[in-house]
Amino acid sequence: MDDLVRETLRGNRRALSRLLTYVENQREGAAQALAELFPQTGRAWVIGVTGSPGTGKSSLVNALAKAFRAQSKTVGIIAVDPTSPFSGGAIMGDRIRMRDLAGDKGVFIRSMATRGSLGGLARATRDVIRALDAAGFDVIFVETVGAGQSEVDIVRTAQTTVVVEAPGMGDDVQAIKAGILEIADVLVVNKADRPGADNTVRALRTMLEMGHPAARAQLTSHHGQLMPPAASVNGSEETLWIPPVVRTIALEDQGIGDLMAALESHRQHLVEAQVLTNLERQHIEIELYDRLQAALMARLLKTIPSNTFTDFIHRIQTRELDPQTAVEAILALPNQPM
Amino acid sequence: MDDLVRETLRGNRRALSRLLTYVENQREGAAQALAELFPQTGRAWVIGVTGSPGTGKSSLVNALAKAFRAQSKTVGIIAVDPTSPFSGGAIMGDRIRMRDLAGDKGVFIRSMATRGSLGGLARATRDVIRALDAAGFDVIFVETVGAGQSEVDIVRTAQTTVVVEAPGMGDDVQAIKAGILEIADVLVVNKADRPGADNTVRALRTMLEMGHPAARAQLTSHHGQLMPPAASVNGSEETLWIPPVVRTIALEDQGIGDLMAALESHRQHLVEAQVLTNLERQHIEIELYDRLQAALMARLLKTIPSNTFTDFIHRIQTRELDPQTAVEAILALPNQPM
Repeated sequence: MDDLVRETLRGNRRALSRLLTYVENQREGAAQALAELFPQTGRAWVIGVTGSPGTGKSSLVNALAKAFRAQSKTVGIIAVDPTSPFSGGAIMGDRIRMRDLAGDKGVFIRSMATRGSLGGLARATRDVIRALDAAGFDVIFVETVGAGQSEVDIVRTAQTTVVVEAPGMGDDVQAIKAGILEIADVLVVNKADRPGADNTVRALRTMLEMGHPAARAQLTSHHGQLMPPAASVNGSEETLWIPPVVRTIALEDQGIGDLMAALESHRQHLVEAQVLTNLERQHIEIELYDRLQAALMARLLKTIPSNTFTDFIHRIQTRELDPQTAVEAILALPNQPM
Repeated sequence: MDDLVRETLRGNRRALSRLLTYVENQREGAAQALAELFPQTGRAWVIGVTGSPGTGKSSLVNALAKAFRAQSKTVGIIAVDPTSPFSGGAIMGDRIRMRDLAGDKGVFIRSMATRGSLGGLARATRDVIRALDAAGFDVIFVETVGAGQSEVDIVRTAQTTVVVEAPGMGDDVQAIKAGILEIADVLVVNKADRPGADNTVRALRTMLEMGHPAARAQLTSHHGQLMPPAASVNGSEETLWIPPVVRTIALEDQGIGDLMAALESHRQHLVEAQVLTNLERQHIEIELYDRLQAALMARLLKTIPSNTFTDFIHRIQTRELDPQTAVEAILALPNQPM
């Protein structure tokens, strides 16, 4: 494992791949390896890309990867598919990707499918981002299918978040946008040659103008159980960033220049407004919270015999106990650590 | 609060509404009220409805609600929108719904938007289902926008899960299906008059035939940290249910009869194969796990001063400590309860 860490830091891609497999499978030594990589992290620009199915996210990430490569930046791509317990979907995406990016040593692609556990995928994604960061990639894309809360959680490990729309995505789209707009730093209307593109752009702009700065602040600190929001800590308001709306046709490389400019301008904003440090602190706070929760639960499960749980489940099922009373009773059991 | 509980059990809708508001806002006494309602639960048929945006889920739930009303069954509808931090999306859905179902005392509709906390929405949805169950509704629909992990978690509180597709939903659809098929008891191709409906039906059937019974079993017990999967507990395999594919045009009430028959036949299967008891036990197990996790974390946060957290976050951000080492250090702090 020490070899893998050393070789990963030296830029050996095969070592990185093997290391990621250990990390994903939570093999022995993986946590230690991540701890050793940790001091070398914090340099990559992590760009989250999300949006509804059918918007062409993968093609867009491909086009962006090529554009960054043209600037001699190395690119990592993490394709996360929270809906697939197999890696079926992710593999399909990779095939398309491979056609364009295969053979380029400056690009590293990793697909991740759900491990089925609540919050587990966000945790694993964070670890993979960190390994790629330590391995020295300049830009890391985290691409997720869908627009639910878990995808939002995953994307929120990013510094810049791109939300992709496409014209004519059906009647629920407005509902989706309300939530997803809150996390967008850059909005893309892809497949912009399709009918309805103007309407989609207009609808997005209207929603942006309506703006909800209060709700946005609230959302940014939604994991703020541990400490107050960054802005109030520093006693100063962060400079407002208004998400631009960019039209692209990713498959024909159209609009990619504009999108690159929008991304770069968001990065400038992050640096100049010193948002980057606050953002990183928020991400660390969320991670610490998640990890503490998982560790507490693991510790509890170790000390309470499984037939005790079976018994409590039975008593709930027979309506002898309600779930909250059961929780209090379990936590009051003797022989717990701490 | 005692009055609210009593009136809710007596079928008073206004009391139920107020009770749900207390529950959603976690007001004092809400947990106690839920505990008092608990013995009266376990009678409703909970039907989860999920699928990608644009498939027409709300219209479908409306049509089904009307069909159940024609059978003199009372219907509760919980519209969950995990993507919306406001209730914007949910409210829009309700307006459409209201047109059809307004004024019917046998129908109760409740919209829920995300509270922003990881897992919080699934927890809140479970509480609302339980209150509606205790209030005596025969059928409870839980409708979620999207198809991500959090929606899957929400839907998995249901006894029967309907996955809705529509023709021509774009190139990511295959990827979505792989995951979502695993949770479907009944598959619906809505908007079946649209071009491509035959292809969608055929694609779904092919994926069903390919089947992944092993993966399915694995998924069913994915929260099985506390106990082995139900099937092995009983020493017998559950009878296999093969999800039917039903075509509908919800807005024109077409195919609703077939869909009702498919739902009824799934309910029969649940009863005859004695799956219902196992399913309920799994749901309780998941709930107990979630609640324990939340309670452990709440307890920890109460005993550790917030500047201790701030300090750890700072040490992680400066790369002095890696996150996992920080977790171990926090858990080793003195003055922790238990």
